[in-house]
Amino acid sequence: MAKKKLVIIGAGLVGSLLGIFLSRRGYRVSLFERRPDMRDHAISAGRSINLALSDRGIKALEEVGIMDSIREIAIPMHGRRIHNADGSSAFQPYGKEGQYINSVSRGELNARLMDLAEENGVDIFFNRRCTNIEWDRNLIHFTSEQEARQDAVDADLIFGADGAYSAARLTHQLQHDRFQYQQYYIDFGYKELAIPPGTKGEFQLEQNALHIWPRGNYMLIALPNTDASFTCTLFFPFEGNPSFESLNNPQAVREFFNEHFTDASQLMPNLEEQFAHNPTSSLVTIKCYPWVREDKFALIGDAAHAIVPFFGQGMNCGFEDCSVLDKLVSKYEGDWKSILPAFQELRKPDCDAIADLAINNFVEMRDKVADPEFLLQKKIEAAFSKKHPDKWTPAYSMVTFSPEIRYSEALNRGLKQEAIMRKIMQMNRIETIWDSTEIEQQILKYLAE
Amino acid sequence: MAKKKLVIIGAGLVGSLLGIFLSRRGYRVSLFERRPDMRDHAISAGRSINLALSDRGIKALEEVGIMDSIREIAIPMHGRRIHNADGSSAFQPYGKEGQYINSVSRGELNARLMDLAEENGVDIFFNRRCTNIEWDRNLIHFTSEQEARQDAVDADLIFGADGAYSAARLTHQLQHDRFQYQQYYIDFGYKELAIPPGTKGEFQLEQNALHIWPRGNYMLIALPNTDASFTCTLFFPFEGNPSFESLNNPQAVREFFNEHFTDASQLMPNLEEQFAHNPTSSLVTIKCYPWVREDKFALIGDAAHAIVPFFGQGMNCGFEDCSVLDKLVSKYEGDWKSILPAFQELRKPDCDAIADLAINNFVEMRDKVADPEFLLQKKIEAAFSKKHPDKWTPAYSMVTFSPEIRYSEALNRGLKQEAIMRKIMQMNRIETIWDSTEIEQQILKYLAE
Repeated sequence: MAKKKLVIIGAGLVGSLLGIFLSRRGYRVSLFERRPDMRDHAISAGRSINLALSDRGIKALEEVGIMDSIREIAIPMHGRRIHNADGSSAFQPYGKEGQYINSVSRGELNARLMDLAEENGVDIFFNRRCTNIEWDRNLIHFTSEQEARQDAVDADLIFGADGAYSAARLTHQLQHDRFQYQQYYIDFGYKELAIPPGTKGEFQLEQNALHIWPRGNYMLIALPNTDASFTCTLFFPFEGNPSFESLNNPQAVREFFNEHFTDASQLMPNLEEQFAHNPTSSLVTIKCYPWVREDKFALIGDAAHAIVPFFGQGMNCGFEDCSVLDKLVSKYEGDWKSILPAFQELRKPDCDAIADLAINNFVEMRDKVADPEFLLQKKIEAAFSKKHPDKWTPAYSMVTFSPEIRYSEALNRGLKQEAIMRKIMQMNRIETIWDSTEIEQQILKYLAE
Repeated sequence: MAKKKLVIIGAGLVGSLLGIFLSRRGYRVSLFERRPDMRDHAISAGRSINLALSDRGIKALEEVGIMDSIREIAIPMHGRRIHNADGSSAFQPYGKEGQYINSVSRGELNARLMDLAEENGVDIFFNRRCTNIEWDRNLIHFTSEQEARQDAVDADLIFGADGAYSAARLTHQLQHDRFQYQQYYIDFGYKELAIPPGTKGEFQLEQNALHIWPRGNYMLIALPNTDASFTCTLFFPFEGNPSFESLNNPQAVREFFNEHFTDASQLMPNLEEQFAHNPTSSLVTIKCYPWVREDKFALIGDAAHAIVPFFGQGMNCGFEDCSVLDKLVSKYEGDWKSILPAFQELRKPDCDAIADLAINNFVEMRDKVADPEFLLQKKIEAAFSKKHPDKWTPAYSMVTFSPEIRYSEALNRGLKQEAIMRKIMQMNRIETIWDSTEIEQQILKYLAE
């Protein structure tokens, strides 16, 4: 097959992995990144510092042979450690024995992906901001403020892998007629706060868990880092009381944390400083269509479908995009007129589904995980699923540990299961009979309907 | 009160009328328009040539004293003339005796509004394309390709009245964090086609009606012009069969029109030429939030809330925006910190409502108006409304002839009435008893529930 000149805009997680996949198929690939080389510079603030890598992402990383290297920098998290308001805590496993998600540093992961891309012959150009795509001439224009230069780069095929605020999408796709587009911000923002290692370099919270302080309308979470620190993220309303607006001085911040996140507050000696200094970021869901244009252009990853972080699937979904595309490149033997539409048709419903699942999971994380009835429901589901693994997989497990189940299928099956569980939870004395044959039979009956 | 320097981007219908309102309140107003002066140049193709002016728009035009002048160029349309597929036709009045909407030429209306704006001291600058708004410096940048110049204009208060593809929205609001935005295209486009006057300069179709050829999935409509021509608009799927894609040669076009729009086809001798030459345009609904920023910026008209044309309300809604804003300028005595948020709070739910009503009305126009059951329902509603005008106003009349009813209220009341009518239409022998006391009592009972 004739090999085209491919340009990927954005050398973040998805752009770098896509570069690896495509160079392994024999394409000449160039990556253009707006920021300086993160391997030489500190990472810019305002993005999440660590991420939860799970099976869909792992599968894609294994396909390019980098997963062994990534395991060195990943910390397994086997479940949620819930920190209740009364000071008690509880552990909720994420899945079955041996199933876990992984806390990884965005920066380290990205650096290793860039290294591997370069080893595969991909050229990465930094400090190149995409300003315009000249569609009829196949030209991409970049400016570099740092180097005071402008470039026009020609490409046979352009990928926009430049994230939620994609210049490829805004300067190009949005200019085309009949481009369906929506960006939806929730009324909550987030702020990252660090818990340092202890005086002996130890983890100050349980290492192998994702910590949650669920407080109804808001929550704090914490993920472990390899240096024994934790990165906490406060998900909090922008306005109202309490909100980022209302916590407007150091004393108010400390008092609020002391009252509502007592144990975490004690582990953050410089909370006030961090709270004032670290940015408050917004949370957006982006849906658009089409993602692709002829055999010349495609959006991928967050650029095509940014989602909120509450299912821990943003990166995993973007990595799965790359894996799906790679299989189509093979299937259609490099015929991009077939590959791109097939990619869009396959992935659009799945990415719409995970976007909705992610929004819904916010309520679960910040509120329901502390609710005894919710916990009972999860126990019933887990017990039934263990007895009938072919008939029932909890929604969280389908999304997180079952890459063979498409997101859209996980959403549909999850909704059906939720409807059944709502009826089960209405049954008399459910808290007593939850583990009975009666319940098992009733679920089987509902499933057969 | 301190008078600010106001800049309005866009001298279309809404921008020009807004300029009149604000200059009458004593403000220095400048209008910047991307296109050349339409009073010296032919209007660019691709926009609708004529529009339906109804009571909400008329009210605003009366408030600035221009309605008498506009009546000279308006043709009353008292109802819909339905052209059925079998060659028969039927007339459906729009409202009560004496209620009508008006066909007006976009170009003539806009020219008269510009004239009045200039008479009121408004400066209009043409060939000025807005490229950027420097928020912190209150500067608006314009380029003029025709005059090879660039301007930076300072303003205390900026209005974006530059339509569905608003540069003020895309270059400014869309750059701000947490800007909610969606653009939604329906799968149908439109193409304008002219029916010329007859050989003696006469109207070749009934003059005082809006003509509709409803054909289920698509439709043709025609509005009269003062030169005795009609402007037809074909609303048609982009893809599928039939579609703009499938009618891909002159012969196919003529055959299709002969079969489905027989009478109209006979009145268009150069149909094939027009069909090939005239653009096919898309139909978009735009919703966004916020419309305003501090006391310095506001979107208005289509720039804030573009809607599809099926309720004939796009212009009327934009004119009502101006009227509502003007009253708030008076109420808050020029305190823009109060005026702009109040404008947004008042108008956002109304403009969301008319957007949804307009989408829904497409099905009514292209399909239901030819359905005997729909016509019976309208007859029942009209009869009941005549007996109980305080209890029932048909949805179309609320939107079109009742400016005192907000769009959002019209939507809500319309939905309730529709639910009642659905039950009434299910009653036994409704086609026989529709005019009975039984039906009247039943509707009264439902209303009281």
